[in-house]
Amino acid sequence: MPSIDLNADLGEGFGRWRLGDDEALLDIVTSANVACGFHAGDPTTMRWVCAAAVDKGVAIGAQVGYRDLAGFGRRRIDYEPDELRDDILYQIGALSAFGPVAYVKPHGALYNVAAVDDVQAGAVVAAVLAYDSTLPVLCQPGSTLARLAVEAGLTVVGEGFADRAYRADGTLMPRSVPGAVLHDPDAVVARAVRMAVERVVETGDGQLVPSPVASICVHGDTPGAVELAGRVRAGLREAGLSVEPFA
Amino acid sequence: MPSIDLNADLGEGFGRWRLGDDEALLDIVTSANVACGFHAGDPTTMRWVCAAAVDKGVAIGAQVGYRDLAGFGRRRIDYEPDELRDDILYQIGALSAFGPVAYVKPHGALYNVAAVDDVQAGAVVAAVLAYDSTLPVLCQPGSTLARLAVEAGLTVVGEGFADRAYRADGTLMPRSVPGAVLHDPDAVVARAVRMAVERVVETGDGQLVPSPVASICVHGDTPGAVELAGRVRAGLREAGLSVEPFA
Amino acid sequence: MPSIDLNADLGEGFGRWRLGDDEALLDIVTSANVACGFHAGDPTTMRWVCAAAVDKGVAIGAQVGYRDLAGFGRRRIDYEPDELRDDILYQIGALSAFGPVAYVKPHGALYNVAAVDDVQAGAVVAAVLAYDSTLPVLCQPGSTLARLAVEAGLTVVGEGFADRAYRADGTLMPRSVPGAVLHDPDAVVARAVRMAVERVVETGDGQLVPSPVASICVHGDTPGAVELAGRVRAGLREAGLSVEPFA
Amino acid sequence: MPSIDLNADLGEGFGRWRLGDDEALLDIVTSANVACGFHAGDPTTMRWVCAAAVDKGVAIGAQVGYRDLAGFGRRRIDYEPDELRDDILYQIGALSAFGPVAYVKPHGALYNVAAVDDVQAGAVVAAVLAYDSTLPVLCQPGSTLARLAVEAGLTVVGEGFADRAYRADGTLMPRSVPGAVLHDPDAVVARAVRMAVERVVETGDGQLVPSPVASICVHGDTPGAVELAGRVRAGLREAGLSVEPFA
Repeated sequence: MPSIDLNADLGEGFGRWRLGDDEALLDIVTSANVACGFHAGDPTTMRWVCAAAVDKGVAIGAQVGYRDLAGFGRRRIDYEPDELRDDILYQIGALSAFGPVAYVKPHGALYNVAAVDDVQAGAVVAAVLAYDSTLPVLCQPGSTLARLAVEAGLTVVGEGFADRAYRADGTLMPRSVPGAVLHDPDAVVARAVRMAVERVVETGDGQLVPSPVASICVHGDTPGAVELAGRVRAGLREAGLSVEPFA
Repeated sequence: MPSIDLNADLGEGFGRWRLGDDEALLDIVTSANVACGFHAGDPTTMRWVCAAAVDKGVAIGAQVGYRDLAGFGRRRIDYEPDELRDDILYQIGALSAFGPVAYVKPHGALYNVAAVDDVQAGAVVAAVLAYDSTLPVLCQPGSTLARLAVEAGLTVVGEGFADRAYRADGTLMPRSVPGAVLHDPDAVVARAVRMAVERVVETGDGQLVPSPVASICVHGDTPGAVELAGRVRAGLREAGLSVEPFA
Repeated sequence: MPSIDLNADLGEGFGRWRLGDDEALLDIVTSANVACGFHAGDPTTMRWVCAAAVDKGVAIGAQVGYRDLAGFGRRRIDYEPDELRDDILYQIGALSAFGPVAYVKPHGALYNVAAVDDVQAGAVVAAVLAYDSTLPVLCQPGSTLARLAVEAGLTVVGEGFADRAYRADGTLMPRSVPGAVLHDPDAVVARAVRMAVERVVETGDGQLVPSPVASICVHGDTPGAVELAGRVRAGLREAGLSVEPFA
Repeated sequence: MPSIDLNADLGEGFGRWRLGDDEALLDIVTSANVACGFHAGDPTTMRWVCAAAVDKGVAIGAQVGYRDLAGFGRRRIDYEPDELRDDILYQIGALSAFGPVAYVKPHGALYNVAAVDDVQAGAVVAAVLAYDSTLPVLCQPGSTLARLAVEAGLTVVGEGFADRAYRADGTLMPRSVPGAVLHDPDAVVARAVRMAVERVVETGDGQLVPSPVASICVHGDTPGAVELAGRVRAGLREAGLSVEPFA
């Protein structure tokens, strides 16, 4: 039976503030990208999310981001590469105090910048190498980060987005392009299944592009998101796939 | 040859700001209490201090503090105990990404509060137990933290201050009391040697009180402090002691 | 027609995180305690909350708190008095860039500590004196802060809580005491009306204690809170009161 | 007697950390760019720097920066323009609680980005317009910020660097170019005098380019900087210039 992983961002509250329905998502996903305190995530949240993940057999990933609580890690920041590497190392180490870190996934602007920028992608790679070179990096196939990670001997796990249209080269269509984001739940589920079974992503005009997707990203921070994530999981199971952690 | 450890706070800058002469202290002490980012210490500073400590055979301790950059961890904060434990765990984990953590020492107001308060001392103990129950806690003999740590089965390492007068019960004379702080370097060195050789501390009127001191704390953040620390080290060596990490 | 003010905490989100229903509350209250960035509140939130308050004729108050985003200002912090005063001054000044500051109200642990502690109450008073000695302080009648503010020549506006029982001396019954918090909306509304009309608070056993309440505090951050606040406002209007800003 | 202003960054410590010799600089400069808490500067430092500036007749400017203590405001951050404007407004307001704000000067990466980028320059302009449209902006002649500020009807005060070489278009030679930074104190003083008397800047090969410089920037955070600043002031006085605030 072929298998696929479902990942989502978790623990993205801070102190008094919560974001998304972590409890519900932990019953759906198989990999939890746990915020590590720099863009979101306080130690107490990290502890209970990690404990719950371990209980439910969900793999724990370090969702590392810029030091930017006010901007939720969504503002590009031009770090010195060594300082970015060290900020990432710090976050991975911090998370490791709460549970076994099984992989690393950059968050927000760091995810986007590392997908195209050698300097920041290199800093992510350097941090993982320094921490534990057996730790997989979860990122987009075809991205600069994926390329540099493979060149450095790291394991790369390809991530796909079932609610997004792709370009012919396998990269994401920007959200600003009409049709770039799918809103029909049935279509999203159908894409997730095809992505998982055939390892392809779809362009806006229905072309299928091969892509080594081993994990599908779902969300929990918008209305209806958790329900949609649940439908994606159900659809994958019905299609005969084993939904399980890649790590 | 009997041995004694010398510890000091290191890596207490933050970003653009430096504090004390870390390089000089690393040639004097045998244990470095490395700030972990909550009261001071940024990831890049933590990395190079840890690397230098490893190079020089200096043991690395997690100098954990309150989340309080603006107050340098010197303002008492009334945490919920679980939140304090988790903040401490987070800091130990973060430091572990930069070097082998050999012990834990609370900083500033947390040090002072945990010396007398069951709740905060308990939070420190709970954090160390959760992280690694073989990790020693460096603290003052006779303190609440020392007592609770021993009761929990942790290793406690007693710390002494050669420039401070003690009360008859082995606790520190408050700084506000005349004579509580020694300023004469020769007297400080003499006390350090006596402390290390005879395992006693001195009261204001010269009484000697037995105290299981295994590490002497020196400072680097005031004028003349590094020189005094160097004289203490030299004095201990001349007295025939081996100056080496307790951990 | 006698008048009464309704106040609530607003703008207590931070960056990506929201808390409570600010829009709805702005249609109910007449005074907005706007978070100033230390325990909650980012500049962009401050700006739109102040703009909406001005639009709706709601008075803007500086809801000043400890520098403690992670603890939402609910952890007591032992500040040096000058540093607390300066932190408060900073927050009032910052808020003034977004709208006319009509009063000052301490938040969370600062509110509670300043109600009983001369040092922290004195720091609040010193900040208001330094900023603008005509600015009223919104606080609990009978508190240390009220007393010191009056002694310093400041205007004190008494605040009452319609969902709380009081002690015979006019101070709040601690939440831990059974019956200290009212949950029946009708009872809360009835108390608010009595408080506004007769200027009394009620003890747990129904005694009425005179209290110079000029503003009633309502909440928006728990389920049903906004609806209850709306019912309190309606009840006050039905009782013939003019609901309007004290400032 | 022609006049010239000398400005420097002040109050750039944070909590326990100090940077530069604020006391000495306050006896040399006529305009103090006071850090407002986002890249550096805590409220207590802001208070005493402002009080000392008022005592000495030094004008107070809001040295506004990115929200980036860890990076000292030197990392470019891609803000949403409204959020940047609001962060700047917040800082100006906060400083106004401690003394009369006479002008605004961006710090670090914000200074550099606003010199060339319409979006961030526009955010600075929008903040000043919203706060007080009579407040001058201190920035580099020929920069995007200077242009947009003038277009918006703001007063622009041109700033020159006596230790830097310029390009033929009046913009700064990048530090990476050999000869871009002058180290000879006599040459720096000579340039400052020429800049102040003739309102010109010099290129690397000695060309003189007209530039409306009304304030010369000096530094205090490197060894010898304060002494050099003092020599610049003395040189200007000896050349018959009145050294006084532009504001």
